[in-house]
Amino acid sequence: MQKLIEGLIQKNNTKILLVVLDGIGGLPVNSKTELEAANTPNLDELASTSACGLHIPVAMGITPGSGPGHLSLFGYDPVEWQIGRGILEALGLGIELRKTDIAIRANYATVESGIITDRRAGRIPSDESRKITEKLQKKIKEIDGVEIIFAPGMEYRFAIIMRFPNPLPPGSASIKDTDPQKVGNPPLSVTPETPQATKVAKITVKLIPEIFKIIKNEEKANYTLLRGFSQVPDIPHFEALYGLKALCIAVYPMYRGLARLIEMDAPALKGDIKDEINFLKKNYNDYDFFFLHVKKIDSYGEDGNFQGKVSKIEEFDNALPEILALNPDVLIITGDHSTPSALRAHSWHPVPVLLKSPYVLGNTSRAFSERECLKGELGIFHTVNLMPLVLANAGRLKKFGA
Amino acid sequence: MQKLIEGLIQKNNTKILLVVLDGIGGLPVNSKTELEAANTPNLDELASTSACGLHIPVAMGITPGSGPGHLSLFGYDPVEWQIGRGILEALGLGIELRKTDIAIRANYATVESGIITDRRAGRIPSDESRKITEKLQKKIKEIDGVEIIFAPGMEYRFAIIMRFPNPLPPGSASIKDTDPQKVGNPPLSVTPETPQATKVAKITVKLIPEIFKIIKNEEKANYTLLRGFSQVPDIPHFEALYGLKALCIAVYPMYRGLARLIEMDAPALKGDIKDEINFLKKNYNDYDFFFLHVKKIDSYGEDGNFQGKVSKIEEFDNALPEILALNPDVLIITGDHSTPSALRAHSWHPVPVLLKSPYVLGNTSRAFSERECLKGELGIFHTVNLMPLVLANAGRLKKFGA
Repeated sequence: MQKLIEGLIQKNNTKILLVVLDGIGGLPVNSKTELEAANTPNLDELASTSACGLHIPVAMGITPGSGPGHLSLFGYDPVEWQIGRGILEALGLGIELRKTDIAIRANYATVESGIITDRRAGRIPSDESRKITEKLQKKIKEIDGVEIIFAPGMEYRFAIIMRFPNPLPPGSASIKDTDPQKVGNPPLSVTPETPQATKVAKITVKLIPEIFKIIKNEEKANYTLLRGFSQVPDIPHFEALYGLKALCIAVYPMYRGLARLIEMDAPALKGDIKDEINFLKKNYNDYDFFFLHVKKIDSYGEDGNFQGKVSKIEEFDNALPEILALNPDVLIITGDHSTPSALRAHSWHPVPVLLKSPYVLGNTSRAFSERECLKGELGIFHTVNLMPLVLANAGRLKKFGA
Repeated sequence: MQKLIEGLIQKNNTKILLVVLDGIGGLPVNSKTELEAANTPNLDELASTSACGLHIPVAMGITPGSGPGHLSLFGYDPVEWQIGRGILEALGLGIELRKTDIAIRANYATVESGIITDRRAGRIPSDESRKITEKLQKKIKEIDGVEIIFAPGMEYRFAIIMRFPNPLPPGSASIKDTDPQKVGNPPLSVTPETPQATKVAKITVKLIPEIFKIIKNEEKANYTLLRGFSQVPDIPHFEALYGLKALCIAVYPMYRGLARLIEMDAPALKGDIKDEINFLKKNYNDYDFFFLHVKKIDSYGEDGNFQGKVSKIEEFDNALPEILALNPDVLIITGDHSTPSALRAHSWHPVPVLLKSPYVLGNTSRAFSERECLKGELGIFHTVNLMPLVLANAGRLKKFGA
């Protein structure tokens, strides 16, 4: 599909704005979903003149993580392009990954006489673990010519990046977790699962005792368990595929990191939706495509806070007129997945979407909600098909065939 | 897709009940379909609080047989997993097939001087043909170490099973029908279409004259024509795929046989919907997944008996409260295909489905019918995606990606 699209691309001066309300989809509590309960006059009016529908990020019944959710919004098949857990962890900690990197999720653990007694080092506080991680970085800078980067994380968690001088072949990160997932066992040995992975395995086998030497006298965090070895994927660039110069506007590092994987510009940014919109305005002339990420809606969903999620939706609705004032040629408002507060987690439910452009039917849905979007002209579709539709509405796709 | 699902399975104690109303979908006669004409207060109320939709068993426009219809309900791609006609015939006659079996549909025919004069042996009555088949079984028990099983059928039809000591390689049943499909011709010779099929062909070449020796003096049924040579497929087991201990509740042998192919438990059962529900209750604690098959709705559809189909739907509606009283975590009510009485046959029309769980939107459809399900949150989807959705609603699928 991406191949087909690539061959049909034509450039013009249109502006496309994709607003991702993270985890927007919900489920009814007392008969109304979060979107239905929220007072959203601006979103509702916009929905009534937009193309509406619902999209399925991965497949029916599949609950997507943030990686697959966003990749499919950007038009990448999320089953073909799987982003490893180590990569996402490192991105979330603000590491700017390169194509030559291997990223690993690491836990501090407690080991006594070679046996794991606590896989999370007593949930050591973040400020304590940060100090240990900084000490590691001070003492370990490289192994066999491979740069080693330690990224401090929350509590017992951190990330390790191996930065090789050159990109490694696919399969280089296929190494089993060393975490046996149970206390009372010794850590597992470093086991490569493919011949290509021996290079990374060798570095790992040297790295683990180096770390141990430094932390062995810590009270709790005296060992480290490694999981989710993963490689930066050799994924096509967004601009190369679509001819769109793209800007990511996100305050959470992981989403910027995801955008950078496909070579969107993603400068660091702090603040709330207002700061994001100001940043959008400031950069509006310099890009074709804007990915604006709104995080807090999902966070309240994950906390099971229905009313909190509702109020964050209303906050976005309040800010919407300022976005509309920019008058982008194509405006899409949707989410990367559903996060019903009733479930306190991401879920498999299709995600409401509205697409505003001059070339839609409209007048199918009276509000921006799951049930109203169900009546819309886009139906229920796979998320990966959104980008071609967006490009078409921007006049950026030529006819296929004569 | 099944690979993706398999990697995401997690177990819990939920109960899932899949009710298959065989051939439920219909077409309007005097403006109402069978489901619309039927008085179904219980189904309608359930639909109003369930996720509703329509599913397509194989592909748009394709009319499924019972095999593909059920396989896709169980999450198996019905184009990838094709069950041979010999297999279905043998299953329908109540034979418990093994992985080492080759099954063949057989006709009694009339042959004079080597020429077929009647391909159906004058539609010999079932009790007469049963006697002949039993005589065959008495005299032929094995050929070259391969057990031969004869299964009596209706009128001129029966089935032959070759039970090999070990499973045969794929392609072993690729043998042309010996039935020339026309009278006035001699029977066709036994022709293997692949090198792997020579083993079965050799047995067949010895079997045909053995049969002829025994029946050659019968008045009409003095020869046999063989069709639909097929091999028990090496299909993944339902429990291995989904981690669900599954019970098939069906009174017709073919459906139990289909369930046994994927290693569901499928004990013999007689009676009507009440007996099926009693059986469900009795076994409710011992399984995770229940496939409850209701046959008669389809039979009336095939007979072109609109009112009969309506009354069987109403009979099920009457029994529904007893099913609901079990309070399964996920309840699905649907069909394996449509059988409009207007067509007197299976058809290609999408099949209405409702899915009851705590994690649905609901409130989209006022009744369980083709047109009301069209308004539902599930949209129109491929049947093979039902199982992932069911597993998700049962909390039995982990998140995909981080």
